[in-house]
Amino acid sequence: MPALPPSFPLPPLLLRQLIETALAEDLGSAGDLTTLATIPAGRHAIGTLNARQDGVAAGIEVAATTFEMLDPSLEVDVLVDEGDRLAAGTTLLSVHGEASALLSGERTALNLLGHMCGIATATGALVDAVEGTGAKIACTRKTLPGLRAFQKFAVRCGGGINHRFGLHDAVMIKDNHIIAAGGITPALRAAKAHLGHTVKIEIEVDTLDQLEEVLAEGADIVLLDNMSPDQLRAAVAKTEGRATLEASGNVTVKTVRAIAETGVEVISSGWITHSAPNLDIGMELELA
Amino acid sequence: MPALPPSFPLPPLLLRQLIETALAEDLGSAGDLTTLATIPAGRHAIGTLNARQDGVAAGIEVAATTFEMLDPSLEVDVLVDEGDRLAAGTTLLSVHGEASALLSGERTALNLLGHMCGIATATGALVDAVEGTGAKIACTRKTLPGLRAFQKFAVRCGGGINHRFGLHDAVMIKDNHIIAAGGITPALRAAKAHLGHTVKIEIEVDTLDQLEEVLAEGADIVLLDNMSPDQLRAAVAKTEGRATLEASGNVTVKTVRAIAETGVEVISSGWITHSAPNLDIGMELELA
Amino acid sequence: MPALPPSFPLPPLLLRQLIETALAEDLGSAGDLTTLATIPAGRHAIGTLNARQDGVAAGIEVAATTFEMLDPSLEVDVLVDEGDRLAAGTTLLSVHGEASALLSGERTALNLLGHMCGIATATGALVDAVEGTGAKIACTRKTLPGLRAFQKFAVRCGGGINHRFGLHDAVMIKDNHIIAAGGITPALRAAKAHLGHTVKIEIEVDTLDQLEEVLAEGADIVLLDNMSPDQLRAAVAKTEGRATLEASGNVTVKTVRAIAETGVEVISSGWITHSAPNLDIGMELELA
Amino acid sequence: MPALPPSFPLPPLLLRQLIETALAEDLGSAGDLTTLATIPAGRHAIGTLNARQDGVAAGIEVAATTFEMLDPSLEVDVLVDEGDRLAAGTTLLSVHGEASALLSGERTALNLLGHMCGIATATGALVDAVEGTGAKIACTRKTLPGLRAFQKFAVRCGGGINHRFGLHDAVMIKDNHIIAAGGITPALRAAKAHLGHTVKIEIEVDTLDQLEEVLAEGADIVLLDNMSPDQLRAAVAKTEGRATLEASGNVTVKTVRAIAETGVEVISSGWITHSAPNLDIGMELELA
Amino acid sequence: MPALPPSFPLPPLLLRQLIETALAEDLGSAGDLTTLATIPAGRHAIGTLNARQDGVAAGIEVAATTFEMLDPSLEVDVLVDEGDRLAAGTTLLSVHGEASALLSGERTALNLLGHMCGIATATGALVDAVEGTGAKIACTRKTLPGLRAFQKFAVRCGGGINHRFGLHDAVMIKDNHIIAAGGITPALRAAKAHLGHTVKIEIEVDTLDQLEEVLAEGADIVLLDNMSPDQLRAAVAKTEGRATLEASGNVTVKTVRAIAETGVEVISSGWITHSAPNLDIGMELELA
Amino acid sequence: MPALPPSFPLPPLLLRQLIETALAEDLGSAGDLTTLATIPAGRHAIGTLNARQDGVAAGIEVAATTFEMLDPSLEVDVLVDEGDRLAAGTTLLSVHGEASALLSGERTALNLLGHMCGIATATGALVDAVEGTGAKIACTRKTLPGLRAFQKFAVRCGGGINHRFGLHDAVMIKDNHIIAAGGITPALRAAKAHLGHTVKIEIEVDTLDQLEEVLAEGADIVLLDNMSPDQLRAAVAKTEGRATLEASGNVTVKTVRAIAETGVEVISSGWITHSAPNLDIGMELELA
Repeated sequence: MPALPPSFPLPPLLLRQLIETALAEDLGSAGDLTTLATIPAGRHAIGTLNARQDGVAAGIEVAATTFEMLDPSLEVDVLVDEGDRLAAGTTLLSVHGEASALLSGERTALNLLGHMCGIATATGALVDAVEGTGAKIACTRKTLPGLRAFQKFAVRCGGGINHRFGLHDAVMIKDNHIIAAGGITPALRAAKAHLGHTVKIEIEVDTLDQLEEVLAEGADIVLLDNMSPDQLRAAVAKTEGRATLEASGNVTVKTVRAIAETGVEVISSGWITHSAPNLDIGMELELA
Repeated sequence: MPALPPSFPLPPLLLRQLIETALAEDLGSAGDLTTLATIPAGRHAIGTLNARQDGVAAGIEVAATTFEMLDPSLEVDVLVDEGDRLAAGTTLLSVHGEASALLSGERTALNLLGHMCGIATATGALVDAVEGTGAKIACTRKTLPGLRAFQKFAVRCGGGINHRFGLHDAVMIKDNHIIAAGGITPALRAAKAHLGHTVKIEIEVDTLDQLEEVLAEGADIVLLDNMSPDQLRAAVAKTEGRATLEASGNVTVKTVRAIAETGVEVISSGWITHSAPNLDIGMELELA
Repeated sequence: MPALPPSFPLPPLLLRQLIETALAEDLGSAGDLTTLATIPAGRHAIGTLNARQDGVAAGIEVAATTFEMLDPSLEVDVLVDEGDRLAAGTTLLSVHGEASALLSGERTALNLLGHMCGIATATGALVDAVEGTGAKIACTRKTLPGLRAFQKFAVRCGGGINHRFGLHDAVMIKDNHIIAAGGITPALRAAKAHLGHTVKIEIEVDTLDQLEEVLAEGADIVLLDNMSPDQLRAAVAKTEGRATLEASGNVTVKTVRAIAETGVEVISSGWITHSAPNLDIGMELELA
Repeated sequence: MPALPPSFPLPPLLLRQLIETALAEDLGSAGDLTTLATIPAGRHAIGTLNARQDGVAAGIEVAATTFEMLDPSLEVDVLVDEGDRLAAGTTLLSVHGEASALLSGERTALNLLGHMCGIATATGALVDAVEGTGAKIACTRKTLPGLRAFQKFAVRCGGGINHRFGLHDAVMIKDNHIIAAGGITPALRAAKAHLGHTVKIEIEVDTLDQLEEVLAEGADIVLLDNMSPDQLRAAVAKTEGRATLEASGNVTVKTVRAIAETGVEVISSGWITHSAPNLDIGMELELA
Repeated sequence: MPALPPSFPLPPLLLRQLIETALAEDLGSAGDLTTLATIPAGRHAIGTLNARQDGVAAGIEVAATTFEMLDPSLEVDVLVDEGDRLAAGTTLLSVHGEASALLSGERTALNLLGHMCGIATATGALVDAVEGTGAKIACTRKTLPGLRAFQKFAVRCGGGINHRFGLHDAVMIKDNHIIAAGGITPALRAAKAHLGHTVKIEIEVDTLDQLEEVLAEGADIVLLDNMSPDQLRAAVAKTEGRATLEASGNVTVKTVRAIAETGVEVISSGWITHSAPNLDIGMELELA
Repeated sequence: MPALPPSFPLPPLLLRQLIETALAEDLGSAGDLTTLATIPAGRHAIGTLNARQDGVAAGIEVAATTFEMLDPSLEVDVLVDEGDRLAAGTTLLSVHGEASALLSGERTALNLLGHMCGIATATGALVDAVEGTGAKIACTRKTLPGLRAFQKFAVRCGGGINHRFGLHDAVMIKDNHIIAAGGITPALRAAKAHLGHTVKIEIEVDTLDQLEEVLAEGADIVLLDNMSPDQLRAAVAKTEGRATLEASGNVTVKTVRAIAETGVEVISSGWITHSAPNLDIGMELELA
């Protein structure tokens, strides 16, 4: 198989829009008062962005583009690839040019970089824990407004796969939908009757009885929510490959291997996007 | 003193723009495939948003406005105030109307609500820990793009105060600025020479010698970074009220009280915005 | 099965943004010079939007919202449903209020309404032609910038189904991708290795040999491009239900039934979105 | 007379905004799943955009800019000029670079290019039909939202002239305005009383009596709607050059020459923008 | 003639966008710190906006909409019409509701109101000075970015007419164009050859010889730049009604009547938009 | 002290957005009809922007960027620095390239340049008048929507300092706030209780008694509104350095020195932004 990108790049317009938003928020109408008042024009420096913890790289292009958009005369050297494992002390990128531009861009670059590396690191920990089982780690829609594409990219950098990007690109019939639709069978029939042929249908079940009802009607993916490993194993046996099985609920670094060993194909976690702690990265500056 | 809002409201245009961004991201061009395919028009329901953990409320208006913007015919009842302490099981708000609209808005409303309550809860834990010392807990600029106003609002809900909102509304001379400006004294002089009279000047120091240099030249606020409680106490003694003192570095629920007891007036933490875990909140739905 | 909407509504933010774009384009900075100069304030009228040809309704909400956004005091009565068959002479909606607002909104409302009804009418002609065969009519990505959601909505109003909404919500491996990827098998393997579990994979083939290679590797959907009815029948026989089969190429009202009778499940047409003629609709005005 | 551009260029900001809209619509948050998953980075190709029908070129710059905006490293060679007559098989432009970028941009580039060439081709057919009569072919405001400038540019490429761009840049008093204003004379007087000296006034008439009333009061342009060639000839005779005469209604390639031979100066058609079929253009790709 | 609006309203989308811009600029991410910190919720007040100088009203709707957009619960009473002559002390509008909302909106409402009244007042002074001569006062394109529609509206409120709104809605061949085009005659011929029939052509001349060249070729409007009253009178005589004559240059309240008495139809002034002083208007507040 | 920029640059995103707004407003959908119709492609010229009055430079970068954004192939030579004193006849910048691009950008470039130089010139006149007194000249929030950052930049070019940029970056308790808050003391206490430590608090007083109440409670800045020089002198004496004193009201080139000599540190003027006349600057063009 040909060499492929370890992760798909971000749509460039989204990238530029987010950085514009971030810079506008930080610079306001007045600009960077500190730097502009205290740093003489023409003073050059080198800034290096260094990991202060072990982790996984994600958002390198975001950080590089932040500096390039702020001041196109800056020279940015990218020293790691998206998805690389990082030891504490690794330099992710270095930036050379006007000290004032380095200082104005520092926090904006670090904020999203630290957040994305944090997500990739959390994802990577789950991916490592299930190694060899064949199960894949997936994210959810539990993301922050305006950042979904970036958080999902970080999940890919950490070795995970992406669940649907929104309400618009796949069907997911959850417990509340089943209540409102009047049951599993009517919900599945309505979905099949009304949707185009390119859309996958997933449905959530809490019990093996519900699973049986789903399999009788047919669905592409079944989400097994909050089941014990024994229940999951029974679900795998009952399904016999008629649907892709995804497990969710109580997924931690400690529990995930036992879940993976039940034979489910996908394990999804909201925690990797909504609660992964920031990876500590700082900028060191020296005059050039 | 007259009764005052526990926290300042969010600028309404920012609020609506963020919700538009979030809904657009989730709905895409195709809309909510699941709900639209499976839920008949005219099916009414009541959704309640319930805390599943103890915490502090923040973002209630965000959640309410999400439902109102998605479908102005929904009736939203807000049951707690921003800043309220929440016990697990508390209902934050209830929404009544078309089941399809409730389901389409659920995740968007919960994503930002859970994030903001998470920040308020983390802030509240630090605020509680320093009770009675007179120290205030402040946030930083370690926030996510497009969300700064919302994260800083959540800090206020948790009982904290806001540090500057960006590079544009106060001066903060950090270690890297001092390097690039050629020292503490030239940096402070340049700032005073070039800035308007409404702008406060803060400067970061790592040692008591640096503090002495700052006090000789004069500054509004001094950030004492990564000092031990003993060093902080010495700094308070040396300063004699000539500047507001702010401590940062290694601030956790365990360490914060010792820092506060040194006499510093403000303690700032990046963790409350960049790494606070999401507060678990869910929506229960029943047909109406 | 419960009664369901004949077509999914448009995301309301998209709807309002498109109408804002259209009104801004027409009104410019100076506004409607003609109406404002010649029609006295307070002169009330009733405008009726009438089909001047037989066709299928689509875009009724777009037209109604145009008038409501231009002047919230206008009363709009919607007289047909999206997807209704229209005889020449049918009134689609009537608007009552300031004559100047009716006249300022007339062309904007009619432009998109006539275009969307044109697409629905073209789609409906294909749908009628395949009635009883079980085949569904689908659109493509051959749409106009900024209008894709509206054109795809019109396809649904005409009884068609939607193909993917963009490059982002399903995989479609076309002839040029096969060239660049180095063949059918490597392309399919790469897609499966890198994509999330919620994404369907479609691949285009021109020959039965290519179909065999696809079926050996596995794909969700196979697009049979420019095949004769005999070839299509052979493809259906060979596939034995292992993939959804979609036919495209040379699809007209005359040819479509023969294609449908081969047993393919979906027939896709670019013509219904990129070349369907406008349905002639006009506004009659009388003073009220 | 100096050599002049055959058509005025598009305002560059409009051009870039429309392409951004189109790319955002197609790429969504997830990007081009197919290309990114199946095409290795570094695989280079040449794509050629070829007309598959005879026609007139329009939108060449739009297509070229689409590829350049998607990936600035692509090399685009433009091989025809806007307004050129195209024989089937003509290559309009070729693009060289990353195969993945060529494939991601293909449909966006072709969608607007085929639409604009379709309009230019339809316009050109009318222009050819009136050759030698002195009559000019003009478009109307029957355009699609967000695309008006592009559709009117295509009309110019086809040899037509542009009617007003919106409600804001000329006065057009139509039948419904006359009803609401209380007659032709009051409408014309009000327009003259209230408008600046740079605005032309056009008024629509259906009968020769109405034309007489207009000429008595004075107007810059008279639109003769749905008149037979005999009526048009009478109108030309009666007007004696006191106003520019424009004919509209039932304008087709078959009827247009007879209309032109009556002596009217302008013939306007909605069909060339709202119903011109797409010109068939495809991209051929080969590895480089 | 029927009663007509004294001035055409502003396109409502422009109005709302400008107010959003203004409020966003003032409120930033943090909101109105002063009001929110010091004014208790529930404290109601009445604010009145009062002219402190004589002048002409313009922008009343802008001010009213500012308060309504900031807080839809405010009650706004508009007490004068756009275009009204104001004596010092006149109340333009009163606003009743939350004191905090009144105070947050005060400056934004007053800034544009004072600017627009200033323009209307300056225009009105010129209009008054030429009363009875038949000459009209027109503005130019010497306006501020984003404000053109508002400044031109204010000109209409002051009794003036609008010149073209931009480069896009009329042709104006100035001295620099004549240089670049190679002379008056080639410029006029090129314009007529390339432009649609709805566009008026204006050309600037500095001498009577140039005027003669223009009249020989034909143009809709001739701008007589910086001519003395005697030259203007000669130009009027020479033109004999074959073109609309517009005078510009050195137009002040003192000089304008002499210019008007030469018989030119339009006198244009850049000063009324680019240098008119603000009209002093303030808000008085009392508790309710 | 190191050499520092004479004024802080404008945030580049704001700059580009404003120019986009200005160009879009001027070019509309149709573009520059005059230039495009009359100027042949390939005709090159040099345009020079020359001051026709004495003044102070501001907005040079705005003008240069306007030409560069309109046509990146133009060569722009900047000949003066922001803040330079200009004698009538000085060339500010020269632009070389396509004559059509020079002519299309001329007015947009000059409009903002003349406005900003006008503000800088007015500011400079006040700054010159107080030379040697130690008082600084400050602007206010009396600015135009969308232009605040540009107007405040021009103030800095003229030698002034900036007051707060909006409601969000400093507290200013004015007379109306005092009424609504229930007095000076409660207003100050509420502000201190609710605001972060980086925000300065300013309060307006009209009398020396009010000043005394302020000083007893403490504030960073006191605005002395409409006081006579004698009152100001008394206020300076009473304050004894406990707050920064700012004077406002009736500030003109004639009155300002007497105010400055009272010992106040800052004198603020709304006139320099809301009523400064445009500086007359024109573009001369010659063929190249």
